[in-house]
Amino acid sequence: MTLNPTAFNFEKQLTFHHQEYEARVKRIRAVMKQRGIDLLLLSDPCNMFYATGYDAWSFYVPQCVLIGQDEGEPVWIGREMDGHGANLTSYLKPENIVPYSDKYVQSTVHHPMSVMADEIRHRFGQNLCIGVEKNSYYLDIQTYERLKSELSACTIEDASLLVNWVRSVKSPKEISYLHDAAVLVQNAMKAAIEMIEPGVRECDVAGTIYRELMAGSPDFAGAYTSTPPLIPTGERLNTPHLSWNSDTYKKDAQVNLELVACRNRYHTPLGRSMFLGKAPEALKTLESAVIDGLDTALSLIKPGMTASDVEASWQSAASKYGVKKNARCGYSLGIAYPPTFGEQTISLRPEDNTVLEVSMTFHLMPAIWHDGHSIVITEPFVVTENGAETFCKFPRKLFEVI
Amino acid sequence: MTLNPTAFNFEKQLTFHHQEYEARVKRIRAVMKQRGIDLLLLSDPCNMFYATGYDAWSFYVPQCVLIGQDEGEPVWIGREMDGHGANLTSYLKPENIVPYSDKYVQSTVHHPMSVMADEIRHRFGQNLCIGVEKNSYYLDIQTYERLKSELSACTIEDASLLVNWVRSVKSPKEISYLHDAAVLVQNAMKAAIEMIEPGVRECDVAGTIYRELMAGSPDFAGAYTSTPPLIPTGERLNTPHLSWNSDTYKKDAQVNLELVACRNRYHTPLGRSMFLGKAPEALKTLESAVIDGLDTALSLIKPGMTASDVEASWQSAASKYGVKKNARCGYSLGIAYPPTFGEQTISLRPEDNTVLEVSMTFHLMPAIWHDGHSIVITEPFVVTENGAETFCKFPRKLFEVI
Repeated sequence: MTLNPTAFNFEKQLTFHHQEYEARVKRIRAVMKQRGIDLLLLSDPCNMFYATGYDAWSFYVPQCVLIGQDEGEPVWIGREMDGHGANLTSYLKPENIVPYSDKYVQSTVHHPMSVMADEIRHRFGQNLCIGVEKNSYYLDIQTYERLKSELSACTIEDASLLVNWVRSVKSPKEISYLHDAAVLVQNAMKAAIEMIEPGVRECDVAGTIYRELMAGSPDFAGAYTSTPPLIPTGERLNTPHLSWNSDTYKKDAQVNLELVACRNRYHTPLGRSMFLGKAPEALKTLESAVIDGLDTALSLIKPGMTASDVEASWQSAASKYGVKKNARCGYSLGIAYPPTFGEQTISLRPEDNTVLEVSMTFHLMPAIWHDGHSIVITEPFVVTENGAETFCKFPRKLFEVI
Repeated sequence: MTLNPTAFNFEKQLTFHHQEYEARVKRIRAVMKQRGIDLLLLSDPCNMFYATGYDAWSFYVPQCVLIGQDEGEPVWIGREMDGHGANLTSYLKPENIVPYSDKYVQSTVHHPMSVMADEIRHRFGQNLCIGVEKNSYYLDIQTYERLKSELSACTIEDASLLVNWVRSVKSPKEISYLHDAAVLVQNAMKAAIEMIEPGVRECDVAGTIYRELMAGSPDFAGAYTSTPPLIPTGERLNTPHLSWNSDTYKKDAQVNLELVACRNRYHTPLGRSMFLGKAPEALKTLESAVIDGLDTALSLIKPGMTASDVEASWQSAASKYGVKKNARCGYSLGIAYPPTFGEQTISLRPEDNTVLEVSMTFHLMPAIWHDGHSIVITEPFVVTENGAETFCKFPRKLFEVI
């Protein structure tokens, strides 16, 4: 069963032009061909969005985008109530949108994979080499085992990150969305820093941050983000992934703010630290090290440099202050859905020799935990012909509230 | 390597008393024993939270809670930087918190499962029947295949939903958190309904909803929710899972508001529909059918009734208006993390004969799409000795703004 097109006589709401999707699919097919993959089954909502434009909070049920080696459009398969959304947000024709009925949802009898397997046999044939994303949050083991038993004549290849790598170099339109998200993350950071002082509750700051991120600017809407704002303080300062609570900020406490904004699924993060008093000397030293490291790395970045070169330039500047970071100091960024916003491809670390190209985008985030002190001052940037251009123009410093 | 306890000399921040966790683990072990499971490996963050209290946005990397058949505490295994958070939020002793180093994170060489497998061998022995959650979003196929190859002498049993079922009957403290969340979801619903009128932007309403949900009440904090607010209108009215945008609300448009609030990971949802003008007759009929159905079902619910009885009572009242719902009209609720807030156990539908017990909690949500019209009026409730008690006291009607 495919979508009934007569039910949908309104205009598509596309995030990108038709041709941009077609060019993306062409690049994906080139990699599939290299790797001998006949059919790619995408489960990662970031990659489904990238290849077709489909954008909905529906990834908690099994769904996929199929890309074959032939010339045709990809095929979307998902829940019946999401077929409308697929028609609105994707560039696909109705005949390439395949909704399955609600009897397949959380049933102990029926499984959506039987619909997917039928479509695969019918549209793409037998004895295929099928690429699946074994690292995806949204391809569970039950679905995968059903895939293997339904299509036992096919071979399965792990195609994790195949599309993520294709996403590395951004188009002008993608970069413009990251610039939009940068406006929102700076608005939220500014509002938080202006609000935080002793006596204010953490949760009230969280509420203000969310309002800024979701309401957007006068020109465009925000959207839900892949991760919540992380704003630890007090005993939780060094536990980066806990939620806020209703405690009030204390005099001489530190706050590490890691925020991220979303515009059309493109995520721009920003990190800054605050100290609600006069910062101790050790923290000021850490601030100098991190800022010198950022300034140095950002001034040296250019196309042709490797990811490891960026990391080395940061470390060499920071080492003058006796500071060293033991984990990667950044990563590639772009499209995201929960639970994470890294692209999971390029890391700015010693063993990553990926060559930086024009229009790659990164989060340079040398967050540091050192001798009992921590600091978070980060910069998202795009690689241009002329070097690194930061998405944010936010004061690059530790904010002291004295 | 286990956690260095000397680094943590501050008090735990527990959501429940020690004894409540111990009682939960005891109930889980009873089911494991029935099913012949020697060791349960939990990956679902809801179930990790339920069994130990561990609460952090860290589920984007492999982590688990292990529960053996012996008397001891469960064991938490996760990323090094999250060990602090495990010590703060879980009831576990430091020797049962096992952090793995960052070299295992997104590495092509090292995998966290090798640490987990070592701990399993060391603490629980060989030739085990291991229960894993094959339906979990946060146990990916790469990790699962690694588990099978590392522990090839063990047998694997699908323990999906094992702990979800144990969670069905809530304690007084759990119910109190759902009442707290009900306060927040009603505040957010009220703020949204007061704000929505022709000319207002959808994204500004989204921002206000988020502020209410996250800031919380004067007495307690909100927390990030498992799903975003769903507030479709216009062309997206019948596409329930798309995001808001920067369009303004239009005269004579409908808005369906599906909100959910979170307090200490307990989620209380609430749905209401609005019409920005005089509602058409067909919509008024739908309103009457849904409200009569809700009133009828809520007045009849009592312990001993089955899930299918509840559905039948709703359908029978609604059928007087010529209205029928083809999908389930509700589900069990409680703890949630993204991407969904249903417990995935009991459904209010014809084929579910689960018997309702005191302190089970549900979302009665007969959202209806009928003859081109839709309406969302829902009620979360708890089963008490005396019948259903709704968590919300929000006007049960279609809101018309004339």
